[in-house]
Amino acid sequence: MAEVVAAKEPVNVTKTAQQMGEEQREISISQFFEKNRHLLGYDNKAKALLTIIREGVDNALDACEEARILPDISVKLEEVDKEKFKIVIKDNGPGIVKKQIPNIFGKLLYGSKFHRLKQQRGQQGIGVSGAALYAQLTTGEPLEIVTSTGDGKLHRYKQKIDVKHNQPVILEDSAEDTEKWHGVRLTFVAEGVYREGKQSVLEYLKQVAVANPYANIAFDSPSGKTEFKRGADHLPKEPKEIQPHLMGVEVGIMSRMLHDTKARTMATFFTAEFSRIGTLTANEICKKASIDPKISPRKISDQQVVEIVKVVKEMKLIRPPTDCLSPLGEKLIESGLKKEFSPEWVASISRPPEVYRGFPFQVEVGIAYGGGITEPRLLRFANRVPLLYQQGDCAITKGATEIDWKRYGIESDKFPTGPVVVFLHLASVWVPFTSESKEAIANYPVIIKEIKLGIQECARKLSLYLSGMRRAQRQAERLAIFERYAPETAKALEELTGTSAKKIIDQIKKIVTEKGSEIEEEENEGDETGPGEPGGEPE
Amino acid sequence: MAEVVAAKEPVNVTKTAQQMGEEQREISISQFFEKNRHLLGYDNKAKALLTIIREGVDNALDACEEARILPDISVKLEEVDKEKFKIVIKDNGPGIVKKQIPNIFGKLLYGSKFHRLKQQRGQQGIGVSGAALYAQLTTGEPLEIVTSTGDGKLHRYKQKIDVKHNQPVILEDSAEDTEKWHGVRLTFVAEGVYREGKQSVLEYLKQVAVANPYANIAFDSPSGKTEFKRGADHLPKEPKEIQPHLMGVEVGIMSRMLHDTKARTMATFFTAEFSRIGTLTANEICKKASIDPKISPRKISDQQVVEIVKVVKEMKLIRPPTDCLSPLGEKLIESGLKKEFSPEWVASISRPPEVYRGFPFQVEVGIAYGGGITEPRLLRFANRVPLLYQQGDCAITKGATEIDWKRYGIESDKFPTGPVVVFLHLASVWVPFTSESKEAIANYPVIIKEIKLGIQECARKLSLYLSGMRRAQRQAERLAIFERYAPETAKALEELTGTSAKKIIDQIKKIVTEKGSEIEEEENEGDETGPGEPGGEPE
Repeated sequence: MAEVVAAKEPVNVTKTAQQMGEEQREISISQFFEKNRHLLGYDNKAKALLTIIREGVDNALDACEEARILPDISVKLEEVDKEKFKIVIKDNGPGIVKKQIPNIFGKLLYGSKFHRLKQQRGQQGIGVSGAALYAQLTTGEPLEIVTSTGDGKLHRYKQKIDVKHNQPVILEDSAEDTEKWHGVRLTFVAEGVYREGKQSVLEYLKQVAVANPYANIAFDSPSGKTEFKRGADHLPKEPKEIQPHLMGVEVGIMSRMLHDTKARTMATFFTAEFSRIGTLTANEICKKASIDPKISPRKISDQQVVEIVKVVKEMKLIRPPTDCLSPLGEKLIESGLKKEFSPEWVASISRPPEVYRGFPFQVEVGIAYGGGITEPRLLRFANRVPLLYQQGDCAITKGATEIDWKRYGIESDKFPTGPVVVFLHLASVWVPFTSESKEAIANYPVIIKEIKLGIQECARKLSLYLSGMRRAQRQAERLAIFERYAPETAKALEELTGTSAKKIIDQIKKIVTEKGSEIEEEENEGDETGPGEPGGEPE
Repeated sequence: MAEVVAAKEPVNVTKTAQQMGEEQREISISQFFEKNRHLLGYDNKAKALLTIIREGVDNALDACEEARILPDISVKLEEVDKEKFKIVIKDNGPGIVKKQIPNIFGKLLYGSKFHRLKQQRGQQGIGVSGAALYAQLTTGEPLEIVTSTGDGKLHRYKQKIDVKHNQPVILEDSAEDTEKWHGVRLTFVAEGVYREGKQSVLEYLKQVAVANPYANIAFDSPSGKTEFKRGADHLPKEPKEIQPHLMGVEVGIMSRMLHDTKARTMATFFTAEFSRIGTLTANEICKKASIDPKISPRKISDQQVVEIVKVVKEMKLIRPPTDCLSPLGEKLIESGLKKEFSPEWVASISRPPEVYRGFPFQVEVGIAYGGGITEPRLLRFANRVPLLYQQGDCAITKGATEIDWKRYGIESDKFPTGPVVVFLHLASVWVPFTSESKEAIANYPVIIKEIKLGIQECARKLSLYLSGMRRAQRQAERLAIFERYAPETAKALEELTGTSAKKIIDQIKKIVTEKGSEIEEEENEGDETGPGEPGGEPE
């Protein structure tokens, strides 16, 4: 505030307003993300490589699963110049039809996944075109796309993005014959830095392999070749595309659905447009909202929409079906944790599906303890994709640090401080990421609540294990004391009574062990009022 | 993985590819943010109220400053139904010309601030229309806009957003005569929860008042009226709009600038399109990149663009001018900290401007210690706007927790644990936020570096103060020991020598004090090799 000027009432503010008005313009979404490339995960060169590869691999896995093909993915990273990389991502998916190639890779906010409710990795229609945008921004190089749908034709495109108009610019468009290969091969040339470690490409691919054991992933990196071999030769059951769930649907969405529906009556509107609403429930909603179930959805007033949403909030609706979600399952979580960390103990749970804003979701938790675990760690996944950045503001972190771990006998400072690995997977038909870079989950209260309930359930198991461990330890201590003094005592008794020392020792040992167990049981009953009781944790 | 099905090679992947292709569609930006409302800061009801008010107040302050009007802003929050609020934000700015009203409030990615490089609060063209989107989504209610540019006419609009097409839908458009009022009054009706505390509307307005003391802000909340009175009757100097700085400009941007420029030669291209490039530097760049300074910018090949960017990276360019930024200044930071926390000690510094990706920015730091401070705290500001959420992943937090505080004699566990408040302001012509909700600054390495340098500079001052404090404390301890034993010693000496005890005490006291200072100085020299040395901290 060292330099200030006197503020005078301007002679004519209308003129200022007009000047300001003349500068108003539309902003293209490509321009927006070019200026805000960090929003897409391109705020530094090491992260940029990871983000490009993640976008490519996510798409490859989605496409393969949709076509029911066991994924075979290869990633190649080559430093062609200082901090300039050629990145090749190849899959054996269904490929892309010629007509769609330019838009999919050359237009932001374009895609098939945004408009449907289905558990997928991609959802925004920004990811892969955003990667192309970053590549052209940093090196000026076009993206090369080679694809075939298995019809014997192979298409090769080289294209850039016209940033001002958010449109593809095609530089090359050629075709050739091919054998029966189908799939997509993308080649980016972009600025980057290759590192290995916690937030690296290698770590990402490793975690992808854990959560997607039916995929084979080959990685040719500047420091050598690695292959994450397929560990299962079956794809998981395909998650079903579903209608929105009535729970949490907002006024604005309901209005639009009422306007767009083909249903002719309110009763059929509810049963046709929403998941798991039967005629009985539909009629009940109408009755509670004082609406004739036979009138047309287009005749519903704004006030009535508000009333419907209000009425629905207070009803108990059936949970969403589980077949719209593809959880990892307890077996996979536990085997993944065992393989990676060799813990002495592991447990996992899958929560039943819940709903936020009409979107079904499901939380899965695994906890591993001791053994080869050297430090506490939180592993986060969303729709089978590992999340490596922005841990600080993720709903998973929030849930995991709001638990009162000490109640479960686990040493902690917000998060466990000992050898504990917490694994958390959120599966949803629409994951609410905190930014377009898809690195952290937004803090919706109902999601945080589910995460906490899941962790608590698992922590309770760990608590029982640990208290069992402590019990065994105390028992062992008692036996040790006994073993120290027993020989002398027995010898003295032998001299006194004539009974053999060995017999006396066996007798005393038996008494110590039995008595010890009784004491333990009493102590344990006292413990149980703590974490053992369901819902014991205040929320 | 409990339920799996065998994956077979599909009979015809072409068909799958075609089906997938048919589902490809464009996504409207309004649809995108409706589904991702948390990206705009609407992930819970308490935060939603704050976000709406922040968008309104940011725009009001920007408009007033641009028209050189001392801001007079009022905010009213009224709970009209359970968790449903009427939010009125009114300013005395220049108002909005009739023609622009529908688009400014009814179209996302529309605005005047995105396309220019100027330090402003708003920059994306999403904020206020995003607030309207959230209101209509949660309550179905339109936004009411009342505005006048001071020409005697007052316009009243009620409008919604056609989400599918990202277009305004005008429900009411009326005009009336008015006295000479000018400004904007917005009325939203939206779902919300009113709270007071650390991340509240009240806290936000309080911090706004600290960073913008020339604004008068009246707040009529559900719990009573508050007024943050104007503390300065001068506006800060208006930050100048500038050209991009050559440092860090990327290949993609350079290509487009070369294509769009009106300059006829490469030499004039550099001097006309970039900040602080003179003819000498322009010619030097051309020479180093082996380009004729007289050729047309349109004749530059892709390869040459890459070469230019490479050459520029290795040159030492003049820093950006300071008049494009409007820092708070040390006086304001210190007075704000004193007013809010009554510390025993405070200091601040403003770093010289730096550049990331061609965008000038500047870091300011204040540190307050002791006194009324009861707990450590980090206050974050970007372009005079307080940041209350997403502290975990903000570049400011990263910088503040990567400092080795202990080197400065400050107790810490990543961040100070004692009574220390760190205030940090980032001013920039383009603040890289981690999401559209503008709550945290992205982790660009050069920004984190500047933040750390700024905090280190301030921490050094605190370190000197604390070591002075410690010295005084040690001196006091020595005196205390002396005072405990002196009377007896003096008495014994009096008996022995005949000199009066008082005289002897005075003599010993003098010796102790002088000797003590000498010892301190020696000790201190040893200390100085630590934080006292500039650049002593490893980076």
